[in-house]
Amino acid sequence: MSKSLPSRAENYSEWYNELVKRADLAENSAVRGCMIIKPYGYSIWEKMQRALDDMFKETGHVNAYFPLLIPKSFLSKEASHVEGFAKECAVVTHYRLKNDPNGHGVIVDPEAKLEEELIIRPTSETVIWSTYKNWVQSYRDLPILMNQWANVMRWEMRTRLFLRTAEFLWQEGHTAHATKEEAVVETEQMLNIYSEFAETFMAMPVIKGRKTANERFAGAEDTYCIEAMMQDGKALQAGTSHFLGQNFAKAFDVKFLNKANQQEFVWGTSWGVSTRLMGALIMAHSDDQGLVLPPKLAPIQVVIVPIYKGEEQLNNIKSKIDPLVAALKKRGISVKFDISENQSPGFKFAEYELKGVPVRLAIGNRDIENGTIELARRDTRVKTNLPFEGIEQVIVDTLDDIQISIYQKALGFRAANTFEVNTWDEFLVKIEEGGFLSAHWDGSPETEEKIKELTKATIRCIPLDSQEEAGKCILTGNPSKQRVIFARAY
Amino acid sequence: MSKSLPSRAENYSEWYNELVKRADLAENSAVRGCMIIKPYGYSIWEKMQRALDDMFKETGHVNAYFPLLIPKSFLSKEASHVEGFAKECAVVTHYRLKNDPNGHGVIVDPEAKLEEELIIRPTSETVIWSTYKNWVQSYRDLPILMNQWANVMRWEMRTRLFLRTAEFLWQEGHTAHATKEEAVVETEQMLNIYSEFAETFMAMPVIKGRKTANERFAGAEDTYCIEAMMQDGKALQAGTSHFLGQNFAKAFDVKFLNKANQQEFVWGTSWGVSTRLMGALIMAHSDDQGLVLPPKLAPIQVVIVPIYKGEEQLNNIKSKIDPLVAALKKRGISVKFDISENQSPGFKFAEYELKGVPVRLAIGNRDIENGTIELARRDTRVKTNLPFEGIEQVIVDTLDDIQISIYQKALGFRAANTFEVNTWDEFLVKIEEGGFLSAHWDGSPETEEKIKELTKATIRCIPLDSQEEAGKCILTGNPSKQRVIFARAY
Ligand SMILES: [Zn+2]
Ligand SMILES: [Zn+2]
Repeated sequence: MSKSLPSRAENYSEWYNELVKRADLAENSAVRGCMIIKPYGYSIWEKMQRALDDMFKETGHVNAYFPLLIPKSFLSKEASHVEGFAKECAVVTHYRLKNDPNGHGVIVDPEAKLEEELIIRPTSETVIWSTYKNWVQSYRDLPILMNQWANVMRWEMRTRLFLRTAEFLWQEGHTAHATKEEAVVETEQMLNIYSEFAETFMAMPVIKGRKTANERFAGAEDTYCIEAMMQDGKALQAGTSHFLGQNFAKAFDVKFLNKANQQEFVWGTSWGVSTRLMGALIMAHSDDQGLVLPPKLAPIQVVIVPIYKGEEQLNNIKSKIDPLVAALKKRGISVKFDISENQSPGFKFAEYELKGVPVRLAIGNRDIENGTIELARRDTRVKTNLPFEGIEQVIVDTLDDIQISIYQKALGFRAANTFEVNTWDEFLVKIEEGGFLSAHWDGSPETEEKIKELTKATIRCIPLDSQEEAGKCILTGNPSKQRVIFARAY
Repeated sequence: MSKSLPSRAENYSEWYNELVKRADLAENSAVRGCMIIKPYGYSIWEKMQRALDDMFKETGHVNAYFPLLIPKSFLSKEASHVEGFAKECAVVTHYRLKNDPNGHGVIVDPEAKLEEELIIRPTSETVIWSTYKNWVQSYRDLPILMNQWANVMRWEMRTRLFLRTAEFLWQEGHTAHATKEEAVVETEQMLNIYSEFAETFMAMPVIKGRKTANERFAGAEDTYCIEAMMQDGKALQAGTSHFLGQNFAKAFDVKFLNKANQQEFVWGTSWGVSTRLMGALIMAHSDDQGLVLPPKLAPIQVVIVPIYKGEEQLNNIKSKIDPLVAALKKRGISVKFDISENQSPGFKFAEYELKGVPVRLAIGNRDIENGTIELARRDTRVKTNLPFEGIEQVIVDTLDDIQISIYQKALGFRAANTFEVNTWDEFLVKIEEGGFLSAHWDGSPETEEKIKELTKATIRCIPLDSQEEAGKCILTGNPSKQRVIFARAY
């Protein structure tokens, strides 16, 4: 709190890094690329988890837990999966330390070498499908609708808090089905759940689409995703849902007896969102004063700061505020009445602004006399003096309004920064300005790769709702049937 | 379900292993000592987590997340901690795999060797206290009341599902305080929370006590624990709460400016329970027919099985049961109306018995005619034919009664298997029969060790509620001031 944040305009990247630290969301640890999620950050993640978990369970999914460590040989079983995941990962080679004979702490015991190295899971398809083999014999054992909440690890070279870390927290759903159709429906259902979560809880508009073959999950036949726009115009992939076809079933020999009494490989899906969503949430709404949190995910939704001199004034305030706090809590609203004495009201205002508390109330002696209270909205930073009478309902309505307003604001921002682009010259200019470019592409991986090399822009997705439209590829001029979304991305 | 469980009398150990598997709680994975927690088992663990987490939060604790990997050198900083934890653990030495030049899958890339090896956390004191150093400057930064839910790993040689696994899930609380008194109060508070959880939710009576110096946590000044008796008379340590003194603060140089404006080392505690509680829950109550679950932790509290021929009879049953199901759900009771057609009622009865569903209702055509319904209690296996009218309240009352009854039964069992023992001969006889032996001990680690060698019995704890009583040590005859609890243990 000693100095203000860098502004977004000044240095967006620094603004993000500083905000994550100053708002007590996360920090780097002694282990390269591994973060510490601090209590305030974790409490937002817990709210995300609860909301998502409820949605998963409402759609018939159950949670389970699979081992952290995967035998090295498992990774090689699905050919494209190994290319995608078996490279940058943490490898356990030994299972014991011993005292250093030279007296310098402990050393790895060379006699305790594992016969086969173990990998810290970068994702769990392999260990889960090796288990499904034992769980599935007949169509009666299907579907399996399972999810796990877990930590995973990918040895990233360039890391950033929440956005890209070596260890991160996530959920990974892994389902098994008797028919292709059912697996495709599941893949789409989960994409819709992610999109509903992003829009309803995170107040973050997303585009639902499919990935191109280049950007597909290693081992998937089709990858669906949701893509959000950050305030610097860059895209952030916020969740993915994969139709795995029979790839993992074939790799791990998972067959079932179908209704026609024939052996068939099982159809699979997997889908996940991670603590990366924390990065998205921060970058979607926050401003130069700090976090702006959607009320549905804010750990503290309402803070009340008393302004007073002496115990009598404080007691007068308390006698009005205590019942209000009780009434709000009864309605399920998380409220903090901050009567701590070691900080000034001004300090508290700045602190709660930094932490993104959606509604702040301030009440002083004059308010008590006049029957008023001051309400400040975090999103607009507008303060209003209001009658105390009826304030409870005003607070409830304001929280609802903030949830909708910040969504609308983000939606407006995205609309203002999405461009239909029809010439390569236009593309080159617009991509430098940031935003989503809706443009024709000839469908070839080579063209996609070339555009990436030239502009650092990738195809974020082929939007599900895009209309067929005859056109010419932005780079090659070859014929194209529909527009795709290009952007630079996190 | 093909054959019945081994009986407890026949082979207690086999009974446990088979029950865990057949009731779909957990199974072994391809990685030695690492278990798969299956959905039914995990749903019980989720209920435990929710209840504990609520209790932690009610007492002012917050959750956070610290890295999975710990630099090897951290483990050496606290002298006794390294002795206890730095030995049998999983060591990450490399961060990359590459394609085998001989074409056999992937191999560890020798060029990707870490400068310092990383250890998969066996517990997180070291990484957390190294962080607290940056978080704490003044008494105003204290207390820190933090918990984390995480996976941890200890390379156990002999593993058993839930009871002793290489990887397990747990919560670990780590608190930091300005005074010794406050830290001691915290240690005791958390012990009381564990004991309340065990008795109220798990219906499992526990003895609260202190560990002897021999059995203390590596790095603690004092270890409190709760000890439960299993049905074979063996003890199971179900939770521990440690007063760390200033040990970790000194090891990681965590000082604060106290109110007297002097630099002082911070006082610490840590406390944890794990998926081991699942093993305790199973062994405390279950019988030769399967699981017996306390209603407060049962994923399905009530199951209703219709017995019918043809659609008309089923519809008659549905028209009575659907409103009952809705009414029970409204009261927060988890209820399953099992109308699946591919299994007989008899099969379903056995299956729900195996899974420990506390209350089972069965209703057939004659019940519809007579206005009755059959209620079976899982704990006593008593079936009663009851008027349908008023059954909702009977179900609610029965669930409450089962929760209390199984606690009382376990309490009675413990009382019947706890013995005051006053001679060594008596000790030798009684310890073979199983149970808790309350006996005098001279307070020396050597005597404790000797008794363990001779009988495999350890001092489970020095009970907090034990009275001072002059006596003679059971082994040496040396003077003793109070009795301690001896038992063989899991
Ligand atoms: Zn996309
Ligand atoms: Zn004990």
